[in-house]
Amino acid sequence: MARANPHFLNLKSSYLFVDIAQRVAAYQKAHPERSIIKMGIGDVTEPLPAACREAMKAAIDELGSKATFRGYGPSEGYGFLRDAIVENDFANCGISSDEIFVSDGSKQDSANIGEIFDASATVAVTDPVYPVYVDSNVMAGRSGDAEGDRYSNFVYLDSTPENGYLPALPSEPVDIIYLCFPNNPTGTVISREKLTEWVNYARREKAVIIYDAAYVAFVSDPEIPRSIYEIEGAHECAIEMRSFSKIAGFTGVRCAYTVIPKALKLADAEGNEISAHQLWNRRHGTKFNGTSYPVQAAAAAVYSPEGQAQVKELVSFYMENARLLREAVTALGLSCVGGENAPYVWIQVPGKSSWDFFDNLLNNAGIVCTPGAGFGTCGEGHIRLSAFNSRENVIEAVERLKTVEL
Amino acid sequence: MARANPHFLNLKSSYLFVDIAQRVAAYQKAHPERSIIKMGIGDVTEPLPAACREAMKAAIDELGSKATFRGYGPSEGYGFLRDAIVENDFANCGISSDEIFVSDGSKQDSANIGEIFDASATVAVTDPVYPVYVDSNVMAGRSGDAEGDRYSNFVYLDSTPENGYLPALPSEPVDIIYLCFPNNPTGTVISREKLTEWVNYARREKAVIIYDAAYVAFVSDPEIPRSIYEIEGAHECAIEMRSFSKIAGFTGVRCAYTVIPKALKLADAEGNEISAHQLWNRRHGTKFNGTSYPVQAAAAAVYSPEGQAQVKELVSFYMENARLLREAVTALGLSCVGGENAPYVWIQVPGKSSWDFFDNLLNNAGIVCTPGAGFGTCGEGHIRLSAFNSRENVIEAVERLKTVEL
Repeated sequence: MARANPHFLNLKSSYLFVDIAQRVAAYQKAHPERSIIKMGIGDVTEPLPAACREAMKAAIDELGSKATFRGYGPSEGYGFLRDAIVENDFANCGISSDEIFVSDGSKQDSANIGEIFDASATVAVTDPVYPVYVDSNVMAGRSGDAEGDRYSNFVYLDSTPENGYLPALPSEPVDIIYLCFPNNPTGTVISREKLTEWVNYARREKAVIIYDAAYVAFVSDPEIPRSIYEIEGAHECAIEMRSFSKIAGFTGVRCAYTVIPKALKLADAEGNEISAHQLWNRRHGTKFNGTSYPVQAAAAAVYSPEGQAQVKELVSFYMENARLLREAVTALGLSCVGGENAPYVWIQVPGKSSWDFFDNLLNNAGIVCTPGAGFGTCGEGHIRLSAFNSRENVIEAVERLKTVEL
Repeated sequence: MARANPHFLNLKSSYLFVDIAQRVAAYQKAHPERSIIKMGIGDVTEPLPAACREAMKAAIDELGSKATFRGYGPSEGYGFLRDAIVENDFANCGISSDEIFVSDGSKQDSANIGEIFDASATVAVTDPVYPVYVDSNVMAGRSGDAEGDRYSNFVYLDSTPENGYLPALPSEPVDIIYLCFPNNPTGTVISREKLTEWVNYARREKAVIIYDAAYVAFVSDPEIPRSIYEIEGAHECAIEMRSFSKIAGFTGVRCAYTVIPKALKLADAEGNEISAHQLWNRRHGTKFNGTSYPVQAAAAAVYSPEGQAQVKELVSFYMENARLLREAVTALGLSCVGGENAPYVWIQVPGKSSWDFFDNLLNNAGIVCTPGAGFGTCGEGHIRLSAFNSRENVIEAVERLKTVEL
């Protein structure tokens, strides 16, 4: 009988957000009359910007005419979008258009990027962490055995109240390091100085940083680096991923991109240098057929003057939500981080397990949060609230939070 | 230094269609005045059907309103599309909606499906073959060493003029068998009797058939099975893949789906049964975030009465192209198959290598074909012509073919 990938069988239970959805569905079934405010999964709520909708429709019209029809596009993305990305997101970062790979989502990119590395690579992840980094590496056979909430072969970088949720450099050799700033789930950002320490570490140790910057649009502090490529030497050691999901309401439209500088080298078994860019290019060309053309047109419209104005408004809207949530949480006497340059508020819930607090919030306030334990051992004792919601819901949640017994 | 995936380094040169594009670009650069008719890559040319465009625009309008906005959708696809697929494509096949996984392309699906199998699985591919089945398994480490045009660990199933391009069953044990009917590149179809032999073989040997039916819309012969699930027992041994690319002009829009029946089981290391459906579901949930909502709306419109009429017209259009090409090729005295229930014509070019014939056709008629050798050893001595083109181009190609010296 054909054998299953044994590494899949090493995955722990089901995916976090599926667990939450099931618990919420059970609650809603038991209490069909209660209104539930979902602040768990980080999904946007506001309409797709008009500039994106118009561009997408214009692209569909093109597909409706023989003269302007487009079939297969370049698997790495259209030049018009790659150029707009470089000009707008990487001005003065020394990134060129052909170092941009357009895709249909950062989840896919962050899950697939592991394919270019040797199966024996040692992986470092922060704890708490976005589960996809962990699960995709479990599926690739890099995890070793599950030991409680952790896997034996991963190197965990603890993000705790004590270190301000900014983990220390690894104390043992690692090959791949997943960093996410602004962080999901903690909402913390990283300073130029701290990020420079990471880049210097990766260069020295010949490790590769997978830098997930999906939430960078929410940074307003001018001192915080927008791209890892603002740091000298990052081109030799870092892959950056960005998404249109949160900045422009693309969670249902699907567009993201990954930057792989040509200066980034891996090694073959003999120690010869292998271009990571070429490996990913081959992966993209063989296992992907390009992002939907109307979707790429919509993404490019984000960079038009109208698009820029509209996404700025979206970001401000969500950040006002974040401010209101932070205020309400602080008024409850709880400590929190995030919510200032990030759309997530990460809250300490002393004396309770995070799933208990999740149930408390669901049962007594009808609010769905994300239990911190779902993001890792160090997430225990915390919950995440997402600012992606309507203003009415946030105001209602703020009122309900006042009545919660801690 | 972080190590590269050594299996990537085992891939042979670059991807076939990239090679062709480079050769054509070089020719066009040297002869900027000549018009080139591209009949190589199987990319559609006719506009996206009106029903699909309208549905896609309506979906975009939904995303423009707070009340109807949709963010993340189910990673396996929306119910409205899965239901439409089952009702229309699998009536009386015993397939249920939750056995359908919607994706952004069959290339992706056929490349990714290998992930649910053990790395040591023995893979059988036909020769000639769609390169993605081969390359994705090389990248997964299943190939062994490259030996000339082949890999030592793959089982090759020869499709030759002698066996009517329908290979015999494997003579050695295999775990995964890639079959594609109507075939790319040969355009051959498989009878119910022959397909039953494959299903019986797979059940007996506990192998899994990956059945790529991307071109099934072009079958007009009522005796030819549309789905492998028309064959008794296929639910226990077959995964079927289909695409909207060719039937509805979706090569740039991107939508496809994979069917994994719940009855299909793999084995774990102890021989216990593992549901392939559950493995793929976990893969989809962890490494994919759903197909673009407007794209799924467009795909569902294929099944509306207007959509059905429009795609029927598209299929007839391309099949008339195929008829004209067959006629021209036959008039030249060349033997060919395909082009009757498939959009590809597979032509024997006796006495010439397929790349020589490719160059001959490019240099003397300005026609781009696909050299058979690019699809495998048994493709040598053949070329593929694609019927995906405008009528003007096909008529012009027919004229030019008359002048070609063989």
